[in-house]
Amino acid sequence: MKRRIFVKNASLTALGVSAVGLLESSSKNLIGDNKLKVNEQRMVSRITEFSKFGMDEKGHGYRVAFTKGDIEGRDWFIEQLKKAGLDPVIDAAGNIIGKRKGKNQALKPIAFGSHIDMVPDGGNYDGPVGSIGALEVIDVLNENKLVTEHPLEVIIFSNEEGGTIGSMAMAGALTKEGLQQKSQNGLTMAEGIKAIGGNPDTIQSCIRKKGDIHAWLELHIEQGGILEREHVQIGVVEGIVGIVHWEVTVEGFANHAGTTPMNMRQDALLASARLIIAVNEVINSVPGNQVGTIGKIAATPNAYNVIPGKVVMGLEIRDLAADKIETLFREIEKRAAAIATESKTTIRFERQANASKPALTDKKLQQVITATAQALGLSTKLMQSGAGHDSQEIAAIAPVAMIFVPSVGGISHAYKEFTTASDMTNGANVLLQTILAIDKNK
Amino acid sequence: MKRRIFVKNASLTALGVSAVGLLESSSKNLIGDNKLKVNEQRMVSRITEFSKFGMDEKGHGYRVAFTKGDIEGRDWFIEQLKKAGLDPVIDAAGNIIGKRKGKNQALKPIAFGSHIDMVPDGGNYDGPVGSIGALEVIDVLNENKLVTEHPLEVIIFSNEEGGTIGSMAMAGALTKEGLQQKSQNGLTMAEGIKAIGGNPDTIQSCIRKKGDIHAWLELHIEQGGILEREHVQIGVVEGIVGIVHWEVTVEGFANHAGTTPMNMRQDALLASARLIIAVNEVINSVPGNQVGTIGKIAATPNAYNVIPGKVVMGLEIRDLAADKIETLFREIEKRAAAIATESKTTIRFERQANASKPALTDKKLQQVITATAQALGLSTKLMQSGAGHDSQEIAAIAPVAMIFVPSVGGISHAYKEFTTASDMTNGANVLLQTILAIDKNK
Repeated sequence: MKRRIFVKNASLTALGVSAVGLLESSSKNLIGDNKLKVNEQRMVSRITEFSKFGMDEKGHGYRVAFTKGDIEGRDWFIEQLKKAGLDPVIDAAGNIIGKRKGKNQALKPIAFGSHIDMVPDGGNYDGPVGSIGALEVIDVLNENKLVTEHPLEVIIFSNEEGGTIGSMAMAGALTKEGLQQKSQNGLTMAEGIKAIGGNPDTIQSCIRKKGDIHAWLELHIEQGGILEREHVQIGVVEGIVGIVHWEVTVEGFANHAGTTPMNMRQDALLASARLIIAVNEVINSVPGNQVGTIGKIAATPNAYNVIPGKVVMGLEIRDLAADKIETLFREIEKRAAAIATESKTTIRFERQANASKPALTDKKLQQVITATAQALGLSTKLMQSGAGHDSQEIAAIAPVAMIFVPSVGGISHAYKEFTTASDMTNGANVLLQTILAIDKNK
Repeated sequence: MKRRIFVKNASLTALGVSAVGLLESSSKNLIGDNKLKVNEQRMVSRITEFSKFGMDEKGHGYRVAFTKGDIEGRDWFIEQLKKAGLDPVIDAAGNIIGKRKGKNQALKPIAFGSHIDMVPDGGNYDGPVGSIGALEVIDVLNENKLVTEHPLEVIIFSNEEGGTIGSMAMAGALTKEGLQQKSQNGLTMAEGIKAIGGNPDTIQSCIRKKGDIHAWLELHIEQGGILEREHVQIGVVEGIVGIVHWEVTVEGFANHAGTTPMNMRQDALLASARLIIAVNEVINSVPGNQVGTIGKIAATPNAYNVIPGKVVMGLEIRDLAADKIETLFREIEKRAAAIATESKTTIRFERQANASKPALTDKKLQQVITATAQALGLSTKLMQSGAGHDSQEIAAIAPVAMIFVPSVGGISHAYKEFTTASDMTNGANVLLQTILAIDKNK
């Protein structure tokens, strides 16, 4: 109970600034060390250097968690942390952690970082920008011989793209069943964690409790096109959407496509087409930023000359409100029932175990980031994150915040993903100054 | 020119019966040997015995052309032909041919048979009924020491399910390019033909010219549910539909399913869903027996959390009139253009090389079959074949006819495919009596 009380205090007042206080305080007060700037050239060099791990002859990357490219990238990152004097360790979940002492070691650490694994054929900015940005912050502090009051921790979470596995483990949310799930490279999570130097048998040793982390900050690319379209430099994330996946199975009857008259068919693909459209209509039927996608489909037997007897699809719904996700899903279920009746098929939804709940970021941290960015002359926008992030898991144990920088063309999870050098630099400068502001306002 | 004139004569009068004459002639005249009956028990035993080739532990068969199951089944069939004294040969296309001498060897042969290969996880009746029915006819003639005027040929065509390859070769329509196409088991047609004892290098040696075959008859299961639904015992096929395949490629833009707002998407799967529905609407928009199917679909990258950037589908249209297929396709193209514009995608249709033209069966042969069946006390119905058959290829070089027997539940190309013993026997009896009728009316 003591811890719980302590945490409540922490989340309400640990940052030492009230919303009103923050808005009233001068930029100077917040950005006390704003002569400090990250090194743009070094960031770009590191992004370029890092991109080569797992790259094929076409220039496409493959650093899916637990694969050769991921492991080589991790080794490189660990080496950078060592050069920065952070004496990195790998925890039981395979997270890479580099610690930097504070003046007051009794204080809880300010932690920041991101991930370096990628989706198959993904880009070079989703994860690396925040990870290399964190390295950059440490380098600038080292160069300026600046020691913060709080200890600092750079954390690179393992297998973010395969289900925020490392951060889930740190928040105590990774179950035994979760460890046995298959990762994208075919290994189970447990096998993959072993492959990168973790230890699934002692997974609980990596758990941090509420109050163990003073604040968690993650710099990340937006992965959408909103900042670019609105010409905004810094996105201040107010929350990370919840994500629910359902496997949708439509069963009709496979039959000869030549001999079965049109009115005697039970075509599972035709019913699926109606459902794909219904999902789109339901998601668009209410105002808001919710998104719904059918991104996966497989038909059986999948031949020109056979009416599809079975179709399996993947449905995903995301929103900042868990209730809204459920309401939209119930509407989709209703539409599916009508489609099934009309098409003489059955439609079944199976909710997947990997659902993530919406997570709100810390309001005070949002304000520090906004004020910090504005003091640096950067435009800001409060926005939601449509993508899942490690911050979402860490929100269960610490106040969290995210700093977004624009994605060119809104492209992400593709090799064309790109963020300009100046946008990356802006983001890293906001990260640096935010850390210093939080550290001061203890 | 001589041959052409001969063929014209043959197709008009060689059967020696005019439509009017047929309808007026007594059953006795047509069914001179109707005491002859096929042996139901032997047919059923052979179907059962044959089904075991390529069967797995679940009882599902795998006798896809050129695979182990197909080759074992062919060996068994060749053995049966030998036992029947037919001295079988394998022609350059891998077709199995067993010849039985006629009284008048100057006459052109009456040929009959079917195929014994199957689609993946197909049934035990599509092909074997006509093949084993042909064997049965020979056995009955042998048992009754009956020698026909015309020579007889039992022909088992190779790789029917992979594109009526054997019959196409016999009709001189198999090109060099066709030989290099991949078959369903991964080999090229040329490699597969070699594997079953044919010789792709001398493929032209198997060609029969117009006039070389007096008539071709094929007993086959309906593969649809019309005969069963209407309680008809024998289907007299008036034509085999033409089949055209198009590969349809829908290209949008793959992007993050969480960060891309609904109104900024170029979702290739959503556009594909609209197209699947449009195809169904266009096919149903005009009266007739035409069918149109999208049986194949693949999305890229095919993940829960990525908006599909590309979808490739397989479109098939079948009808007895080639013009109608083209008209329907043009309408689908129009609808696709509108869908592409509205969904910010591109939609491209690529016509596949394997198109088959509609083929009409010989009107006089239709009449002989109808009269023969009715004399046996069987109900008949003139109908189209929605499935492609070897008869379609042979129609280019000889008068052809097909005898259909009911498929239980209209199920085909599935392991549940079934035809009752009495229906198979009825079909084989009609085949036997039709051969005798044609032979008599030279």
